[in-house]
Amino acid sequence: MLRLVPLRAAFLALTVTFVLALAPGTRADDTVTHFTLDNGMEVVVIEDHRAPVAMHMVWYRVGAADEPPGQSGIAHFLEHLMFKGTETLAPGELSRTVARNGGRDNAFTSYDYTAYFQRVAADRLDLVMGMEADRMVNLRLAPEAVATERDVVLEERNQRTENNPSALFREQKNAAQYLNHPYGVPIIGWRHEIETLDREAALAFYERFYTPNNAILVVAGDVRPDEVRALAEEHYGPLPANPDLADRARPQEPPQLAERRLVFEDPRVAQPWVNRSYTAPARESGAQEKAAALNILAELLGGGTTSYLAEKLQFDDEIAVHTSAYYDGLSLDDTTFSLIVVPADGVSLQQAEDEMDATLAQFLEEGIDSEDLDRVKMQLRAAQVYARDDVERLANRYGQAMTQGLTVADVQAWPDVLQSVTEDDILAAAQEVFDRRRAVTGWLNAPSETAQEEIIQ
Amino acid sequence: MLRLVPLRAAFLALTVTFVLALAPGTRADDTVTHFTLDNGMEVVVIEDHRAPVAMHMVWYRVGAADEPPGQSGIAHFLEHLMFKGTETLAPGELSRTVARNGGRDNAFTSYDYTAYFQRVAADRLDLVMGMEADRMVNLRLAPEAVATERDVVLEERNQRTENNPSALFREQKNAAQYLNHPYGVPIIGWRHEIETLDREAALAFYERFYTPNNAILVVAGDVRPDEVRALAEEHYGPLPANPDLADRARPQEPPQLAERRLVFEDPRVAQPWVNRSYTAPARESGAQEKAAALNILAELLGGGTTSYLAEKLQFDDEIAVHTSAYYDGLSLDDTTFSLIVVPADGVSLQQAEDEMDATLAQFLEEGIDSEDLDRVKMQLRAAQVYARDDVERLANRYGQAMTQGLTVADVQAWPDVLQSVTEDDILAAAQEVFDRRRAVTGWLNAPSETAQEEIIQ
Repeated sequence: MLRLVPLRAAFLALTVTFVLALAPGTRADDTVTHFTLDNGMEVVVIEDHRAPVAMHMVWYRVGAADEPPGQSGIAHFLEHLMFKGTETLAPGELSRTVARNGGRDNAFTSYDYTAYFQRVAADRLDLVMGMEADRMVNLRLAPEAVATERDVVLEERNQRTENNPSALFREQKNAAQYLNHPYGVPIIGWRHEIETLDREAALAFYERFYTPNNAILVVAGDVRPDEVRALAEEHYGPLPANPDLADRARPQEPPQLAERRLVFEDPRVAQPWVNRSYTAPARESGAQEKAAALNILAELLGGGTTSYLAEKLQFDDEIAVHTSAYYDGLSLDDTTFSLIVVPADGVSLQQAEDEMDATLAQFLEEGIDSEDLDRVKMQLRAAQVYARDDVERLANRYGQAMTQGLTVADVQAWPDVLQSVTEDDILAAAQEVFDRRRAVTGWLNAPSETAQEEIIQ
Repeated sequence: MLRLVPLRAAFLALTVTFVLALAPGTRADDTVTHFTLDNGMEVVVIEDHRAPVAMHMVWYRVGAADEPPGQSGIAHFLEHLMFKGTETLAPGELSRTVARNGGRDNAFTSYDYTAYFQRVAADRLDLVMGMEADRMVNLRLAPEAVATERDVVLEERNQRTENNPSALFREQKNAAQYLNHPYGVPIIGWRHEIETLDREAALAFYERFYTPNNAILVVAGDVRPDEVRALAEEHYGPLPANPDLADRARPQEPPQLAERRLVFEDPRVAQPWVNRSYTAPARESGAQEKAAALNILAELLGGGTTSYLAEKLQFDDEIAVHTSAYYDGLSLDDTTFSLIVVPADGVSLQQAEDEMDATLAQFLEEGIDSEDLDRVKMQLRAAQVYARDDVERLANRYGQAMTQGLTVADVQAWPDVLQSVTEDDILAAAQEVFDRRRAVTGWLNAPSETAQEEIIQ
């Protein structure tokens, strides 16, 4: 199934797409209902009656960062195996049933969560909920299906990672970013560990984490809260909670005391670039201000062609063909704030990095331009208004937030928190985060010219 | 209790002290007896009747690299707690009893093992064995003793690590060395994790790993194998094996594809230096040839003032005041091959590193000088002959080897394997290991002059 590219790695996407949230004080706030079933399963209902469709999602509070050591990839592997059937569903039957009913379904895995969804006509909610509840407890895995699916995942790794120097570079860089935390291990898993994943490991992971008290049901679209509650109680209500579910505690980072640098060389690299990533705090429940400041900082520095880095490096000095800054505060534990500079022809990576640092220093010295800040805030608000129309995106936002330590109230407060960020907040956050000792600086490059010529000859 | 400085970190010690082994074909070979009790506990007896003393050691096949994630330091913390008494021994009574009988005792923890020892008059063997067997199964921990000892360990970390920029540097460097393997986590533990270690965690670790089928008894000195066997059967024989003891499998490294570099700056650094450490294979049971070649390579390159690096960098070019090369093949999983250059006054770390690399390249190009190789082999043999007289060192050697994947036969074969290393073996091993993609290059330095002046003013 589709593996969600982890947001912290998706630096080339427009940052603006990740900071959408409900506009404050609008009708939208009132369309979200949140309650908890007796077995501990949380339910979020997002109403939108403009079209007769429903998005049905189950989010598990478990992801790649919760894997036992040596079993990297098991969360994602289990996600694949969840389509292999139950006592009453043949392998693939769930997806076929959804498709026959005009819907689509899929699943994705990240560091902090694993999610399954079906988008269907609203009157098919009962049908998909029954099937999703079934596979929460009744998964059946034929040994041969497990072996086959492991090959599928290995091939997925080939395509996404081994054949992609940028992905390999990110993997090595991430491992250097975290000295202790499992965010340093790739979501899809290290190849040599994927190769050892088996049925027993998948079932152990399933039995430990796939339980209603570790799950959040998000239903969005043309639905009523009372109707969703009745269906949820019918389908999910009878499932037993796992009383042994432990607190979600991953190894945390020690003080990072020395910048890590790495140069990744691969003959397949056509366009070299510099990546600086600082370990940075995530959004915290009830205290999202610092993350909001970092979010706006990323917009100011690298959010599109009007950003500071773009103006200085791409247009004034013409030393770069692309620049970006990326921060996503949705993360259970410390995340990263990243900067990218893709140098113009004839500009070395060292020059590109030096210019990037000089520009950062200049930005901090000049202080925040209040017109720029207003513009970014306006863009964020516009994006939020636009996003209200996308019920699928809203469902994702609540699922992500609630599996990453936030509450419904945090999600709803976020637009206001963003709007209340001041120039001083941004500078203070930048001063705190731009500490080279907590950073990895990576260069992605083709091997040096001599070596390349040898290849060409 | 004394924490053994991990050998891979003890780069400033003379390498020669770590490659000692029994000389082949001598009487010494015959004085080692090895057998296994019915409960799976292995016993090694090393006879040496020149003095009426005995070294009694219990080695557990568990160390810091076997810790649950997030509980770094628990192996070493438990080592401390093992002195807190049993049902029949008051806290500290074991050590007091040993001292009253004219002996000394202590313990140490490394990545792959935890060991406890008493050195006593040979006729006190029965006494210490009884106490050691007692604490293998009957440990009792008062909650207040646990809290107090945790403060002791935190203070130990202060003294050994926080107050020592070289130790902090090594810790950060080690974390960058390993992308996946727990050797990247410090033996003493990260401070924030030590702070959370508690009685439950210590007892869980104890119950899982402290069991006769995970232990090796090494008794060396004025003892007879039949006498040791009788005592071992009496004291350790009745202890039940843990049938659930799992295979010892740690997460292994993925391909390392990009050199990591870091600069560690600390105003307390008086003497800057460069450290390059390559991830390198360890001694493998039945296949120690490559490790032997690396061992001799380290001697040739950096074993004292007659070594290649010393001659070129300290005496010919006078750009360094100290150089060394260090490799210790005793490790359950991949270890490191390290080079150190301490530059002379006025020589920058960049110059020092460049000269080091140029010298390495020159060494590989020139090939191995056969006179130098003969000299190193002679030194190794001499050291081995000398080492036979040190029964404590012999006991350590067997304990270390057997907790790190080797057998008695491997230990006894090692001197011959070293002597049979050829020039080609060394060059092949060097070519394989000197791969910058698998290396960390670290600079330890005081902050730049400008910053220092600010501190002085």
